[in-house]
Amino acid sequence: MLYELLKSKDAQFYVQHSGNNNFYYATKFRIPNSAFYFVGIDGTDLLIVPEMEKSRASRESRVKEIASFTDLGFHERLREVKDPNSALAQTLIELLKTHKAKKILVPPDFPSFLTLEFLKWFEVEVVENPFLNMRAVKSSEEIEKIRDTSKAILKAFDYALKLLERVRDCDELRNEIETFLFRMGYLAQDTIVSSGKLSADPHCVGHGEIQEHVIIDVFPKSRRHHYYSDFTRTVILDDCPEIEEMLDAVIEAQEKAISMVREGVTAKEVHHMVCDVLEERGYHTLRKKYREGFIHSTGHGVGLDVHEEPRIYENDEKLKTGMVFTIEPGLYYRKWGGVRVEDVVVVKRHGCEVLTEFPKWIDLRRG
Amino acid sequence: MLYELLKSKDAQFYVQHSGNNNFYYATKFRIPNSAFYFVGIDGTDLLIVPEMEKSRASRESRVKEIASFTDLGFHERLREVKDPNSALAQTLIELLKTHKAKKILVPPDFPSFLTLEFLKWFEVEVVENPFLNMRAVKSSEEIEKIRDTSKAILKAFDYALKLLERVRDCDELRNEIETFLFRMGYLAQDTIVSSGKLSADPHCVGHGEIQEHVIIDVFPKSRRHHYYSDFTRTVILDDCPEIEEMLDAVIEAQEKAISMVREGVTAKEVHHMVCDVLEERGYHTLRKKYREGFIHSTGHGVGLDVHEEPRIYENDEKLKTGMVFTIEPGLYYRKWGGVRVEDVVVVKRHGCEVLTEFPKWIDLRRG
Repeated sequence: MLYELLKSKDAQFYVQHSGNNNFYYATKFRIPNSAFYFVGIDGTDLLIVPEMEKSRASRESRVKEIASFTDLGFHERLREVKDPNSALAQTLIELLKTHKAKKILVPPDFPSFLTLEFLKWFEVEVVENPFLNMRAVKSSEEIEKIRDTSKAILKAFDYALKLLERVRDCDELRNEIETFLFRMGYLAQDTIVSSGKLSADPHCVGHGEIQEHVIIDVFPKSRRHHYYSDFTRTVILDDCPEIEEMLDAVIEAQEKAISMVREGVTAKEVHHMVCDVLEERGYHTLRKKYREGFIHSTGHGVGLDVHEEPRIYENDEKLKTGMVFTIEPGLYYRKWGGVRVEDVVVVKRHGCEVLTEFPKWIDLRRG
Repeated sequence: MLYELLKSKDAQFYVQHSGNNNFYYATKFRIPNSAFYFVGIDGTDLLIVPEMEKSRASRESRVKEIASFTDLGFHERLREVKDPNSALAQTLIELLKTHKAKKILVPPDFPSFLTLEFLKWFEVEVVENPFLNMRAVKSSEEIEKIRDTSKAILKAFDYALKLLERVRDCDELRNEIETFLFRMGYLAQDTIVSSGKLSADPHCVGHGEIQEHVIIDVFPKSRRHHYYSDFTRTVILDDCPEIEEMLDAVIEAQEKAISMVREGVTAKEVHHMVCDVLEERGYHTLRKKYREGFIHSTGHGVGLDVHEEPRIYENDEKLKTGMVFTIEPGLYYRKWGGVRVEDVVVVKRHGCEVLTEFPKWIDLRRG
């Protein structure tokens, strides 16, 4: 695919910098320092790392050819020009010149200090990051990692439901859930534990006493393999007829949406199914420009980032086998509060698999 | 200071993008989305955020003037040009033109897609990030935050020493320490719990059984205020004469180095004191190009990043009141393993304050 991109742009190289998930996805190498991945139309497929990371790179990266900045003459240049940024730019420029590059493609967030130096020698064009779209369709190995994080979430959720017998403070419950996940090897931050009228704001993480119902939305990533999952349930703790009715409608909308997910269906068909069900049940949606009711999109891709491609909204994008995303309808009214139900699904040829299989209607009322 | 920079470069604007600690330091506003901070020679001091973050920005940021992308016409432009990156670039360019900008300064990691668009209208120069140097000297508020994280580390360390009575596996002890800190509100990752000959590699986090001695190096950040601290002790668990002697030398070197820290002393004077003591005691140092012995620098600044300015190495930099950094001599020999002792200090006019006051010689041998 990169070859096609280079050809269509009449460019000889694509250069990816480190410090982001696109670099990791492309190279399978995680590094805190500065590193680069070069793909050339001449077949170049080269990872450039600091000298001290070279042996780890050859063990861990999927890229076969590895060079260090030292190999490429960085230190000689640094002695001459003193400034590390200039020495780095000159080192990369020399490499590109050796490969007879005339035009270079870089991603939008590529560092400006390099682009300005490259411009002295080459044409430079910013392109949408080619790995972003590749990342939308997961390999079976990636799906297993998201499944692993999903299983950890469900364990934490079982634990949270037990805690609800005695913990009645949003911040305390959040800390217990996140610490439970952390101990198991998963990092959850900004977990939403939101109750009462505050829960009408889908962005509020929640504070204060847990009242008649609580939204728990957990999205940890594995500290080992770095893949996220994302899961929400709304728990009923005491009578609240409006909330119960909203939750029933959201569950119906979510189940109907999940049942139509398969290869070839468009994102907007799934989103409109959610809107249709909720509107039929008498609720408002953003589709009709309401600011209460269902006021966000139906879902988002999950992987190395908690929000990535594809978006499940009003877009025409066709679902492909191997895409992994959330289906998370919700309803939010300032008068009553909010409810949301969220699962992660994998698109299959004739349907989808739910990675976060768990009861949807959770009622902890006593007696 | 930014005004001086703009004047010296004959530039009208400095533009800082979000997604890094320099943006947070400059604005005191933390945001996961794209946002910008504009400083103009005409007095402009403007934070630009998404519409939905505007009210939070006015509550939390120290920047007084706040505009949303919507206020600046982003959505009209998006309808015209379709591409969000182009619409964003045009929105920012229009703002700069209104302020009669001719030359713009940006930091090295500024996104290339904006720089290439800016270049169509303005001169663009990459400058070293002006906030990096400002961050080296801490305000009293920042020092209190680093003190807070330091106190949490010492609590976790007391807990770790108790655990050492029964836990004898490096990975298990790391997980217990990190989970303890997490529950208290601090995120520690890659905590070093390293024992035996593996500890001769200062970059190895450590695995396997805890043997005669163990290096514990913890560097959490607060999940609330985001400031780091960094602390290391080497614990003796059983007889190991070479390690004990190395540890004694490192403690002497560290205490002598700490005793000379004060305003006006240079970084390299502190570093050479460490080397002098260790060489007098018969150990090797990197100063004489040895690859065993004391093979790293004496310390690094600590703040919003765990490694930041100033570096305490062979550099001429003069220490200033309010600088916060580590003093962490170590000795590493493949034959015996490694030892290290690390504290965080604040530079004062006539000395320094240690934020991580804790016994240095820790001997848990029984009987």
